[in-house]
Amino acid sequence: MNFNKKQLTIYNSLEGKKVLFNPIKDGFVGLYVCGPTVYNKVHLGNCRTFISFDMVYRYLLHLGYKVRYVRNITDVGHLVDDSDQGEDKILKKARLEKIEPMEVVQQYTLDFHKVMNDFNCLSPNIEPTATGHIMEQIEMIRVIIDNGFAYESNGSVYFDVEKYNRKQNYGELSGRKIEDLISNTRELDGQTEKRGPFDFAIWKKASSEHIMKWRSPWGFGFPGWHLECSAMSTKYLGDEFDIHGGGMDLKFPHHECEIAQAMASNGKKPVRYWMHGNMLTLNGKKMSKSIDNSILPGELFSGENDFMDKPFDPMVVRFFMMQAHYRSTLDFTSEALSAAEKGYHRLLNTINEIENLPTNVDSSESVLKIVKSFYDAMNDDFNTPVLIANIFEAVKYINSVKKGDETISSSDRQLLKEEMSTFLFYVLGLKDSNLKSEDRLSPVMDLLLQLREEARNNKDWKTSDKIRDGLASIGITIKDSKNGSSWD
Amino acid sequence: MNFNKKQLTIYNSLEGKKVLFNPIKDGFVGLYVCGPTVYNKVHLGNCRTFISFDMVYRYLLHLGYKVRYVRNITDVGHLVDDSDQGEDKILKKARLEKIEPMEVVQQYTLDFHKVMNDFNCLSPNIEPTATGHIMEQIEMIRVIIDNGFAYESNGSVYFDVEKYNRKQNYGELSGRKIEDLISNTRELDGQTEKRGPFDFAIWKKASSEHIMKWRSPWGFGFPGWHLECSAMSTKYLGDEFDIHGGGMDLKFPHHECEIAQAMASNGKKPVRYWMHGNMLTLNGKKMSKSIDNSILPGELFSGENDFMDKPFDPMVVRFFMMQAHYRSTLDFTSEALSAAEKGYHRLLNTINEIENLPTNVDSSESVLKIVKSFYDAMNDDFNTPVLIANIFEAVKYINSVKKGDETISSSDRQLLKEEMSTFLFYVLGLKDSNLKSEDRLSPVMDLLLQLREEARNNKDWKTSDKIRDGLASIGITIKDSKNGSSWD
Repeated sequence: MNFNKKQLTIYNSLEGKKVLFNPIKDGFVGLYVCGPTVYNKVHLGNCRTFISFDMVYRYLLHLGYKVRYVRNITDVGHLVDDSDQGEDKILKKARLEKIEPMEVVQQYTLDFHKVMNDFNCLSPNIEPTATGHIMEQIEMIRVIIDNGFAYESNGSVYFDVEKYNRKQNYGELSGRKIEDLISNTRELDGQTEKRGPFDFAIWKKASSEHIMKWRSPWGFGFPGWHLECSAMSTKYLGDEFDIHGGGMDLKFPHHECEIAQAMASNGKKPVRYWMHGNMLTLNGKKMSKSIDNSILPGELFSGENDFMDKPFDPMVVRFFMMQAHYRSTLDFTSEALSAAEKGYHRLLNTINEIENLPTNVDSSESVLKIVKSFYDAMNDDFNTPVLIANIFEAVKYINSVKKGDETISSSDRQLLKEEMSTFLFYVLGLKDSNLKSEDRLSPVMDLLLQLREEARNNKDWKTSDKIRDGLASIGITIKDSKNGSSWD
Repeated sequence: MNFNKKQLTIYNSLEGKKVLFNPIKDGFVGLYVCGPTVYNKVHLGNCRTFISFDMVYRYLLHLGYKVRYVRNITDVGHLVDDSDQGEDKILKKARLEKIEPMEVVQQYTLDFHKVMNDFNCLSPNIEPTATGHIMEQIEMIRVIIDNGFAYESNGSVYFDVEKYNRKQNYGELSGRKIEDLISNTRELDGQTEKRGPFDFAIWKKASSEHIMKWRSPWGFGFPGWHLECSAMSTKYLGDEFDIHGGGMDLKFPHHECEIAQAMASNGKKPVRYWMHGNMLTLNGKKMSKSIDNSILPGELFSGENDFMDKPFDPMVVRFFMMQAHYRSTLDFTSEALSAAEKGYHRLLNTINEIENLPTNVDSSESVLKIVKSFYDAMNDDFNTPVLIANIFEAVKYINSVKKGDETISSSDRQLLKEEMSTFLFYVLGLKDSNLKSEDRLSPVMDLLLQLREEARNNKDWKTSDKIRDGLASIGITIKDSKNGSSWD
């Protein structure tokens, strides 16, 4: 379907409203999403963010954009907080487990990839690591210092927020005003290295016990967490790119700092559209390990947890997430997931039934209008719950056709099946986990024979022979008869 | 079983003989294996090396060692040859395909992981990348220059082989003598930067077209290939570690250069035991793309190749590889693989039958002796073909018990089943897979994607959309990239 991709609107956190999406270079999209810190198993809230942006990535691809999707791996330097007192989380874990930090990184990176795979997320085009870009970060720090927006202090380098704010608007993304922030701040101990309370470390001096440290013009140390995303997004997407995504909790200070770092180094606003995904709750409460209100993806799939009545398939969980808009909070409860499971299976069943619907000369409903409603929903800031509601409207219509209360034409039946499948499987990224390979071989073969039939009708013997010979080499024989072709 | 792990012998390439394995730190093993260059799909010869060292890793773990297994990813700086005329392979590919080098890296790293997973290889504990360790490499170059064994020349840095050889023995691993090498060398053009013909680049000046380059004390450039393994093995395993593995083709010059670099930087011999895996041939000839005598792992699994009569399961291929000693060449033929397949299935069937064997008060054979023969084989430089022969001896015994010609006690039956399973599944890394259903879908999909590719090349969007949407309706997602399409 050729629905105009210029209709896509995105809620831009920077403007606080929905705006028409207009990429910097026509036909191309640069997309950066803050990835996981691999010092532990990825938690469900992070998964929601990555699944949301997987859906965004998929829809952009579906609209025909060539997308470069970059999602980083934070494998060092993630301070626990901005007080500069925080211990590097990865180092802490490694020391506790008495293993090399990069062993922890390897283990949890593999675990993360497995979970993303379970959730049927496409791989990003580039997955850069923080430790793989220390030089780029040092380079950026050098430039920021040269431009006067950072200073060295006792082997660390701090970003001078107040000085930056005098020239630029620190807080424009989160809507915070530096003056208010300052007046609300108590004097903290151990912060004497910093000129101002909101200055943040972009390079941190390493103590002698630190294992992960690198040589820099300011001595041995490691980069501050905020910096890696600026250095890597710039490297792979340019000084200005289209979309930056992440969880709502990263808006301040992380993304605010990213803007400041980029502006301080090259004077350009790095991102056109800032997108923020919302948080998860579990039984109405914030997920948190410290209050024992937390569940891991694996525990959700296996059923081994204290919160759910039964295990849930990753595809049911994904469908459940898609039933909420990415900017809304979402509460995980056993009841809600069970309801999603039911709905999801109803959808799958209906899709499998479409091709058996009785057809008529005319359709009593406009299928084009139904399909348009799918695009309208997605073009409205990726409104997946409305999309799913519209798909369920189509299900109602299909059931009415089945009962004989409504009619559908043969071509509309084909169109509806294709578009429902495209939106459910390609755009929302779901899959029918019950379909085994052999189950899939049969419909794939049907498609292939249909193509061959068309080639023969067009006297395109080259293509039809290619299909026949190609299949023969796999050991599949096509038999042609008056009634069409079959295979064995 | 408490068989003495102190009995393990390893053929040490450095000494040219089998020696008793004696790790530097009791109970711990540091193992480094040269990993793939991710500018293309991993080839079968590389896979053999990685499978061989997976077996080594598994046996060391089985013996109770705490092993830190490091296998690098070469994602930049692999010069095609040592003439310093070679273009960086990854850059070449990226430029041809007009994509960002790190996109190529991501794609082929994921592909490599998938193939390793198909072959049931355990993940190394650390998988460091060359681009992730540029600083460590610059650091090492600095030290080598300071120690007088390297010199800067026109923005590049060369290792001074002749000077090194005057103090140390360059060629001790490969048994080559620098004097002989020199007398056999013609004067080459374009090598004027170098003082001696065998000097090799440890830092290479980047031309202005180079995308992958980093700032260094010698200007913008990138590290020489030999250096990355020295920098990364030292970082994660220390100046001296136990085992370094790789393909036979890496012995000279790559591993020779590694020794020289380490010695030149810290005066220590880096590796106690050098292990080299041997090469593959295909129908008696060297595998080579240029003479069309080459097969990729995926082509072997799918059966889509010009060399084999049928597809082979990854586990059959692994079993086939294990039937040869890692230091012997191995010839891939359809007949040999078919024979391995038969043998493998016979083994699997027998193992599944053990628990139904009739038992007696006594065993007519010493099962302990059989089990000891398993350990003896593996302790003899990981002699997997002898291990498999010994396992087949056990199969004979089991069949005799079945026929009533021999007897087995209940505890021996338990022991035999446990040990056979341990050696077959844990040590040799095989598994009872049932990939039959995948056999046909995968090649049919390849054919379909090929048709779609052609349609796209002909700008026949109707057909290409039809295929994409048709597949989407089956729940199959196509992902396009510059290097082709994949599906999931």
